Amino acid sequence: MLETIHSPHDLKKLPVDALPALAAEIRQELLAVVSRHGGHLASNLGVVELVLALHYVFDFAQDALVFDTGHQCYVHKLLTGRGERFQQLRQADGCCGFPLRAESPYDCFGTGHSGTGISAALGLAAARDNAHGHRKVVTILGDGALGCGSSFEGLNNISVTTKDFILVLNDNKMSISPNVGAFSRCLSRVISTKSYNSFKAFCRNALLRVPFAGRRLKGWISHLEGATKYLLVPSAIFEELGLRYFGPLDGHDLPELVRTFQRIKHLRQPLLLHVLTTKGKGYPAAEQNPACYHSTPAFDQSNAKPTKKNAGPTFSTAFGQALQALRADDPQLLAITAGMPEGTGLLDFSQNYPESFFDVGISEGHAVAFAAGLAAGGRRPVFAVYASFSQRAMDYVFHDVCLQKLPVLLCLDRAGVVQDGPTHHGIQDLAFWRTLPNLAVLQPCDAEELQAMLALALTRQHAVILRYPAGSASALADSHADYAWGRAEVLRRGGRLALWAVGREVQTALAAADILAEQGVPITVVNTRFVMPFDEALMRQQLDDGMRVVTLEDHNIASGFGSIAKEFFAGHASGRIEKLGWPNEVLGWGSPAGLRERYGLTAAAIAERLRALL
Amino acid sequence: MLETIHSPHDLKKLPVDALPALAAEIRQELLAVVSRHGGHLASNLGVVELVLALHYVFDFAQDALVFDTGHQCYVHKLLTGRGERFQQLRQADGCCGFPLRAESPYDCFGTGHSGTGISAALGLAAARDNAHGHRKVVTILGDGALGCGSSFEGLNNISVTTKDFILVLNDNKMSISPNVGAFSRCLSRVISTKSYNSFKAFCRNALLRVPFAGRRLKGWISHLEGATKYLLVPSAIFEELGLRYFGPLDGHDLPELVRTFQRIKHLRQPLLLHVLTTKGKGYPAAEQNPACYHSTPAFDQSNAKPTKKNAGPTFSTAFGQALQALRADDPQLLAITAGMPEGTGLLDFSQNYPESFFDVGISEGHAVAFAAGLAAGGRRPVFAVYASFSQRAMDYVFHDVCLQKLPVLLCLDRAGVVQDGPTHHGIQDLAFWRTLPNLAVLQPCDAEELQAMLALALTRQHAVILRYPAGSASALADSHADYAWGRAEVLRRGGRLALWAVGREVQTALAAADILAEQGVPITVVNTRFVMPFDEALMRQQLDDGMRVVTLEDHNIASGFGSIAKEFFAGHASGRIEKLGWPNEVLGWGSPAGLRERYGLTAAAIAERLRALL
Repeated sequence: MLETIHSPHDLKKLPVDALPALAAEIRQELLAVVSRHGGHLASNLGVVELVLALHYVFDFAQDALVFDTGHQCYVHKLLTGRGERFQQLRQADGCCGFPLRAESPYDCFGTGHSGTGISAALGLAAARDNAHGHRKVVTILGDGALGCGSSFEGLNNISVTTKDFILVLNDNKMSISPNVGAFSRCLSRVISTKSYNSFKAFCRNALLRVPFAGRRLKGWISHLEGATKYLLVPSAIFEELGLRYFGPLDGHDLPELVRTFQRIKHLRQPLLLHVLTTKGKGYPAAEQNPACYHSTPAFDQSNAKPTKKNAGPTFSTAFGQALQALRADDPQLLAITAGMPEGTGLLDFSQNYPESFFDVGISEGHAVAFAAGLAAGGRRPVFAVYASFSQRAMDYVFHDVCLQKLPVLLCLDRAGVVQDGPTHHGIQDLAFWRTLPNLAVLQPCDAEELQAMLALALTRQHAVILRYPAGSASALADSHADYAWGRAEVLRRGGRLALWAVGREVQTALAAADILAEQGVPITVVNTRFVMPFDEALMRQQLDDGMRVVTLEDHNIASGFGSIAKEFFAGHASGRIEKLGWPNEVLGWGSPAGLRERYGLTAAAIAERLRALL
Repeated sequence: MLETIHSPHDLKKLPVDALPALAAEIRQELLAVVSRHGGHLASNLGVVELVLALHYVFDFAQDALVFDTGHQCYVHKLLTGRGERFQQLRQADGCCGFPLRAESPYDCFGTGHSGTGISAALGLAAARDNAHGHRKVVTILGDGALGCGSSFEGLNNISVTTKDFILVLNDNKMSISPNVGAFSRCLSRVISTKSYNSFKAFCRNALLRVPFAGRRLKGWISHLEGATKYLLVPSAIFEELGLRYFGPLDGHDLPELVRTFQRIKHLRQPLLLHVLTTKGKGYPAAEQNPACYHSTPAFDQSNAKPTKKNAGPTFSTAFGQALQALRADDPQLLAITAGMPEGTGLLDFSQNYPESFFDVGISEGHAVAFAAGLAAGGRRPVFAVYASFSQRAMDYVFHDVCLQKLPVLLCLDRAGVVQDGPTHHGIQDLAFWRTLPNLAVLQPCDAEELQAMLALALTRQHAVILRYPAGSASALADSHADYAWGRAEVLRRGGRLALWAVGREVQTALAAADILAEQGVPITVVNTRFVMPFDEALMRQQLDDGMRVVTLEDHNIASGFGSIAKEFFAGHASGRIEKLGWPNEVLGWGSPAGLRERYGLTAAAIAERLRALL
C-alpha cells in the first residue's frame, strides 16, 4: 500500500480502517531503512499513527507542520513523495535525517536542535495572521523538548500572540533518555478520562443536592469542575499558559486520533493535544531499550545487533571511564549531562555515582549556570555536551563561568563533522570560545590523552574546554610525551614542513606523513594539544627556521585553530601559515569519510596538497 | 541610622519596628546616589523592604543570596559594608552596579543577564547538599526573569535536585517594561487570601452537610481544597513544578515579611514566596513611569529631569525612527523586542504599529526562532536587541536563521563598551557571527548610515546584522557616499597610513586624523561599513601601495574586524595590519571615556600610536 502513496492526497483517498495496515507497512519500511543506514529509529516508530492521522486530516501543502525535534520526521518524509530518496536516508545523495526546506515544500521549517519548534511555528502563525491567511499551523513537540527553555519561552508567548495554534505534545516519557524534571513528573500524573468523568458527575450531583444551593454555590460549581480537572490530568500548567487542553489521547489509536483532529481542526483558539505514545513501538528491542535505539548505527533486524563492530573505545566511552576513575579519587567531582547520559558516555558513571551525577534534561543554558553555581560552591563540575548543542550555552559560559573565573570543565563531544549533517556538525564553537577570558581549550588525540587532559584540567583554577569527535579514540602513539601547560607534542620530526594537527586529526596527519615519507618527503607532525593557549614558542621556532606551517583541524577554518595561529603570526617575516579544515559554508550530511573526500581532507588528498606546497 | 549599619550583624540588633525608618533612609540614599551617577533606580526602590527583611532574618555571611537579575542588588550593597564605595556607584573606582564575587563575600554569585539566578542558586544548593552542609540558599527572582527560558529550565530542575531551596518571586508586573506572556498574566490573577480562606471554609461545610458523605467524598475534599486554590492564587503552575507556594505577600510590609521569612527559614522543602512590590516605590516619578527609571542617567531629584542634555539623537532613537519610516512603506515589516521597547528605541513604533510589533519578554532564543518563522512565512522581521544579550541567541541565529538562509534582520544596540561593565559590554559577539554562513554584518557610523543600511539590509535574501553603540548618532559627514554591497567609504585621503574605523569609531578616527593633520601627518580614514563581507579590494590596494593599515573598533580585538582583516591578509607580502580595540581581558565598569583613557583608545592616544607606527 505504501508504494501507492506518492503524496498526502493519495493518503486521503483511503478509508480510515485501512490506515492501521498502512501503519504496519510504514514500520517495516522504517526498520528496513534504518537497520541498513542507521538513524533515529525509536522515536519514529512511536509517531507512525500520529503523523499518519495528521496528514489524513490536515493538508500540509497549505497548512504548516513543524517537528520539534526534527528527527521525528521520517514518517512525514515517507508520506510526502520521498519514499525513494528515503532508501538513502542520511547518505550524501539521499534524504536528510531532519526536515529541510530545500528538500520539500512539505518541510516548512528545518529543526535539528530541540526546543525551536514552538517559537518557529508561532512565527509562521503570526505571519499568517499578519497576512490575514487561514493556514493551520501544527507543531509536534516531543522527545523531551518540553524541558528546553526556549520551548517554555514559546509556550509563554502562544496565547498572547495568536488565537489559532495547535500544539501536539508527543508524550513518550523519554527525551533521548527518560525525561527528567518536574514538568515531566507532572505530565506522568495521568489517569483515565473515564474515571475523571465519573467523578465530575458525582461531584456535580452532590453539590446540587445541597439544600441551600443558590446562585453563589452554582457559580462555584463550574470553577470547581475546572479545578478538579487539574488534579486528574496534567492540564493545569498548560491552561495557566492559555492553551486549551485535550487529552490524554492514545497515540496508537488511529480512529481516535483522526476523530480528534477532525474535531479540533476548526477551532480557533490555542490548543494543546496531549498524545501518549510508546517510543520504539512495534520493534521489541527498541521498545525495551528506546535510549539505545534513539539514534542507532546500522543493525541486523533479526538479532538487533550492530552490523559493524566498533573499532576500539570511542572518545565518549573513554571519557566516561576516565571520569569514573577521577571521581573515585575525588568526591568533589560532579558530572552533568543535558539529557544525554548515553551519548556522552556517562551512563556507567550515573549508575556508579548517582549522588555525583545530574541529568538536567535538554537545557544547556541551565546546565552551565548550574555548573557555575556548583563551582562557586566549591565543587568540581564537569558538563559533557555535544559541541553543536554547546552553542545554546555560549552566553552562560561567558557570563556565568568565564567572567567569574570559575573552574568549570566543559567536555564537548561530537566536536567535528558528523553523519547527521549541518545542524549537528560541531565545527563552529571555537569561534566564540576564542574571545573569552579565563578559558583554555584542549583537544586530545586519543584515549590516553583524554584521560591525562581531564586530570590536568581539574587542577586548574579557571574554566577548561576539552573537544573531541565521535568515533574511535584508539591510541595514536605508543606513549605520549609529558604534559606541560600550553605545550604541543612533536610526533614526527624532519623535512621543511610542520603539520599541526588538532585532536583526532593527528591520525589523518600521521597517515598523510606516511604517504609523503614513502614518496621520500619527510614532514614534521605536531600534536597541537592546546588550542588556547597554543604553543606559540614552538611554532615561532619552526617559522624562524624557515619551515612551512600547516594547520589541520576538524573545524570551520574561518574561526578555528588555524585562524588563531595565522592571525597571531601575521606580522612574522616568513609567517606563511596554511589552514586545512572545513570551508565556511553549509556542509551536507552523510558519512564523514564522504565529506572528507569531497572537501579534500582525506590523508591522501592532504598529502597531495602538502606536496604541492613544498 | 544607615550610617551605623556596617554589616548585616548591625542590622540584626535593631527591633523590627525600627526597620521602616531605615527603609526610608535607604530610599533617600538610593535617590541621592543614583540621581548623581545614574543607575538602576526603580527596581531597587521596589525591593528595599524585601532585601532588608532577608538580611534581618538570614545570615548571608553563611547563607547564600543570589539576585536575578543583578541590578536589584543596591540595597544589599548598602547593607553589607559598602556604603562608602556605593557613593561612587558604577564609577571605575566605585561599586559595580551588579553583584560581584570579587567585591564582597556577600556577593556569592555574579548576575547581569536575566534568567541565570535559579540555575546558579541550584548549583550552590546542590554543592551544599553534596558537602552535607546547612547553608540556606535564597534567590530573588524579579524583573521579568520568569519569562526567560533558562529560569524555566531552572524551575523545572529544583524539586528533582534539592529539598532545600527558597525562591522569592519579586512580582512587580514589570520586567523592564510591563511583563508580557501567559505566565505573567497568570501571576496577575491574585485575589486576597482572605477571600480564598472564606471560600474554603464555605465549601468544606457545604460538602460535609451532604447526607451521604462517606469516606470517598471526604477523600475528595482535601483534593478539592487544593484544586480550588489553583483558581484563586497563581500557585498551580509552581506547585505542579514541585514548589510549595506561599503568598501573595505585601512586599512593602516589613513585619509581614520578617514574620514569613522566620517561619519558612526552617522548612526543608523547595519553596516559592510570591511577593508583590511596586517598582519605583517611594519616588513618584519612578512609580508613575518605572520603565524610564529602570536604568536612568543622572537626574535632578527636584524635577526628575536628566542633568545632562543628550547630544542629538542616539542610535536607538534613530533606529526607531528609521524603522517606522520603512514600516510605513512596507506592511510586511515586523519589529520584535525581547522585553526592551524603550532601550531599543521601539516604543513609538509599538504605539504606532501595534499589529506589527511583538514584545516577547526576556527570551532572546525564542525571539530569533520566532523571527525565523516569520521570515519563513514571508514577512520581514527585525529583531532589536542589545549586543551582549544577543549571545543568548547565538545557536538560534546559526540553526534557525543562517542554516536556512532566512532573511532576518538583527539590530544589535549597545554594541561596544557601556557603563554597566563586563556583563553588558557588547564586544564579543562578532566572534561567533564570523563563523556563520549566509550572514552579513554592517556597522553604521551615524544616523544617516543607519537608515540607509536598514533599507539596504531589507532588500537582501539572507540574514543581516547591524551593530551600533549606545550614545549619539549625530552626523559624521556632510553626506555619505553611495552604498555598494561590501564596499567601504573613504572619508579622508592621504598619507602613508589608512585607518579603518568600524561604525561609530569613525568619529574617533576623524578626531585622531585631525590631531595628526595638525602635526603635519596626514592619514587616510576609511569608514569600514561592511565587516562581513569587508572591502578586501580596497584594503589590498592600500597594502599593495605600501600603506600601513590599522583597524579601529569598539570590540574585543581577539575576534573582531581587525582579526578578520589581519588573518585575511596574513599571506600578503607587505600585509602588516595593526589592530586597535579592546584587549581580550575582563574590562571593568565606569564611563566608556574612562575605559578609553585606560586602554589608550582616545583620539589623542590613537594619534600618538599611529605616529609611532609611521
